[in-house]
Amino acid sequence: METALRMETALSASASDSVNQQRRLVETLFERLAQGSRDEPGVTRAPYGPGETFAHGVMAACAADLGLEIRTDAAANTYMTLPGRDRTLPPILIGSHLDSVAHGGNFDGAAGVVAGLAAIAAIRRMGLTPARDITVMGVRAEESVWFQISYIGSRGALGTLPDGALDVTRMDTGRSLADHIAKCGGDPDALRRGDRHLDPAKIHAFLEVHIEQAPSLVEAGVPVGLCTGIPGNFRYPNARILGRYDHVGTPLRFRRDAMMAGAEIAMALNRIWEENEDAGRPMAVTFGRFHTDTSVHGMTTVPGEFRFSLDVRAYAAAVLSDVEVRFHAAIKVIEQRRRVMFELGPRAEAGVGEVSPRILSSLDAAATALGIATMRLGSPASHDAAAFAKAGVPMAMLFVRNENGSHNPAEAMDIDDFLKAVSILTQWLAAETCDGSIPYR
Amino acid sequence: METALRMETALSASASDSVNQQRRLVETLFERLAQGSRDEPGVTRAPYGPGETFAHGVMAACAADLGLEIRTDAAANTYMTLPGRDRTLPPILIGSHLDSVAHGGNFDGAAGVVAGLAAIAAIRRMGLTPARDITVMGVRAEESVWFQISYIGSRGALGTLPDGALDVTRMDTGRSLADHIAKCGGDPDALRRGDRHLDPAKIHAFLEVHIEQAPSLVEAGVPVGLCTGIPGNFRYPNARILGRYDHVGTPLRFRRDAMMAGAEIAMALNRIWEENEDAGRPMAVTFGRFHTDTSVHGMTTVPGEFRFSLDVRAYAAAVLSDVEVRFHAAIKVIEQRRRVMFELGPRAEAGVGEVSPRILSSLDAAATALGIATMRLGSPASHDAAAFAKAGVPMAMLFVRNENGSHNPAEAMDIDDFLKAVSILTQWLAAETCDGSIPYR
Repeated sequence: METALRMETALSASASDSVNQQRRLVETLFERLAQGSRDEPGVTRAPYGPGETFAHGVMAACAADLGLEIRTDAAANTYMTLPGRDRTLPPILIGSHLDSVAHGGNFDGAAGVVAGLAAIAAIRRMGLTPARDITVMGVRAEESVWFQISYIGSRGALGTLPDGALDVTRMDTGRSLADHIAKCGGDPDALRRGDRHLDPAKIHAFLEVHIEQAPSLVEAGVPVGLCTGIPGNFRYPNARILGRYDHVGTPLRFRRDAMMAGAEIAMALNRIWEENEDAGRPMAVTFGRFHTDTSVHGMTTVPGEFRFSLDVRAYAAAVLSDVEVRFHAAIKVIEQRRRVMFELGPRAEAGVGEVSPRILSSLDAAATALGIATMRLGSPASHDAAAFAKAGVPMAMLFVRNENGSHNPAEAMDIDDFLKAVSILTQWLAAETCDGSIPYR
Repeated sequence: METALRMETALSASASDSVNQQRRLVETLFERLAQGSRDEPGVTRAPYGPGETFAHGVMAACAADLGLEIRTDAAANTYMTLPGRDRTLPPILIGSHLDSVAHGGNFDGAAGVVAGLAAIAAIRRMGLTPARDITVMGVRAEESVWFQISYIGSRGALGTLPDGALDVTRMDTGRSLADHIAKCGGDPDALRRGDRHLDPAKIHAFLEVHIEQAPSLVEAGVPVGLCTGIPGNFRYPNARILGRYDHVGTPLRFRRDAMMAGAEIAMALNRIWEENEDAGRPMAVTFGRFHTDTSVHGMTTVPGEFRFSLDVRAYAAAVLSDVEVRFHAAIKVIEQRRRVMFELGPRAEAGVGEVSPRILSSLDAAATALGIATMRLGSPASHDAAAFAKAGVPMAMLFVRNENGSHNPAEAMDIDDFLKAVSILTQWLAAETCDGSIPYR
């Protein structure tokens, strides 16, 4: 009895130390990241740009302090590995991206890499040695706004980049992806050949921690979400509608109003969206750019051209294809009736990312063991984890409660919530590969 | 019999000479105008800018050649007068504006001043002296795109400029209307006091020739249109919708999507418009500017702000007020449902311009006498004539067939069609104030 009590007190003191060390580690990492990529308001870590490269450096420095093996690949991703007892076993990957949108928040992406390092630090602190390698992956170039391509770093590592990707130019610099990769020490020629650094069959699991990009957890008052799936999408990044510029007084029957055609297609998709939501099939429609030509438009001119970007996402491939068919059908009707022409331009897509049911339930068990409240949650956004799922790697994600959405400097993640996600991840790692659960609290 | 025949032959020869002289006069004027205000593509004659002032100079020089009296007023309008026998009688005004939109066409506005000078030249050539003064008015600043105010020159002359108009700044220069007027030799202080150059009660009639700004005459195969009315309008030149920027993955229930709110209000007005057209109440809705914020928008961001300009026009005040009430009601519904806020900003309006039935039927008679085909036509656009109608001056307009709309460099008016409108105007002037019709053909 007495021995048991002393043991519990000792564990409790050690747990408290451990929590303080964890907090210091993650706070230091987030502070360094923000300092080195500040671009008021917020931070900018453009893919294959100085902010992102700085972030990889911060993570590698921390990994070196933790005594991890550090490697990079042809896409200039960073791999930080705690060696397992049997190095021939497929490793566990824990990763996320280190780039950001322009003037974005400090946590979107980076939190997943910090979580991996913090979990490894906890494993080491507790003197555990994993059965298999645990590798933290700092992924390059996830934010598709820059190159208009999803998952560049992940897919570069997996050898699944789409044709022509390396020749795409970055929105702001006008320089090709190949050029950007080469400047960051990567090997675009290897990527062009389809060489892969990671063989999906030889990865045990891919786990990603990410701030939630919607306020579902805030709404529910729950600190951590267990992801049930990552939406797939189809995208038209640079669509336009061609009509005819006309005087403001032009009667209806003569008009070829590109702007009204734009409003009409938006409302058509809005109706399809609401229908699906009502039927319990969540999805989202975003016209991020939606505009008359600002160089020529004016109050007294009927717009002869209209431009838009479109992102449609859903959790089921069937929903996506149904929406796209109806989108094209609506365009045909509008084109005929308004005598305009849609030029949709390039199309991009990402498959639906399915979560491993086995990992999901073991994460659930880990959270329950720790007494941390969680809820299941469809990911609102796309994530690198989806590229791994598509390649056949068992995948799971943890979301951290975040007040103000992401892709903006006001993202608000509480470090306590983040540490809860790290605890679940650590508990899961211990159970999964360190032969048992750890007495974490 | 023989005398009559000789007489007819002589008249016919003289008529042919006269037509050739008319053609030379108007072609020369249009060429000079284009040369002095070219701004490829098209011409630019910004109100109270060099292009417009140049145009006033071209017209004044022609008027001087024709021996007309030349005056200007506090708004820097130009008046070119053929004196009548009784100078105390209220004059006939024939006018239009000499400014243009940026990269506009050469005929929009200017054709009405050229028509007045050509009609006076014809009257003089035929040795007629009018009973009352005939004054050609070169009007300043009609194109509202520059100062976002309608009929600046006309209303300046009539003393009906709206409060605060003189402090409004021009879109491109950022300088005030008062400053622009002063730089062109006008007297902004007099305008501020509400001094008027023209007393509506002392104007016999205001006539305006203008190219048609829609292809109704082309469609019908008729060279000249007789205006049945000028639409009134209400405008919101700088409206915006405030929502919240969010990540592209944000679920529907959390969104405050300003862009979808924009598309929805556009479609709401579109439905009201189609309803009115179906019920035989022509009107028009134009969102000339309709856009996400191009400095921050992106494919993966839900738009948190949306901007638009709105022009709604109709031929009946009751239709206008009904549409505006329904517009505001639709906004309320959208604001509540989408949790956005509309900031409509400044509102402008122009009253419906009613045509004098007496002048309309005498113009009809003049056209019939000349054997020129005409059709009755509601004006698609706003015109200075509306400001005179509103002030109580009997008003009428003639439209000239024009293939490609106006406010663009492709406007295509055939000089033959234009000369037909000048003939009707001349015939009408002769009948109205020169004691009888003229043997014009």
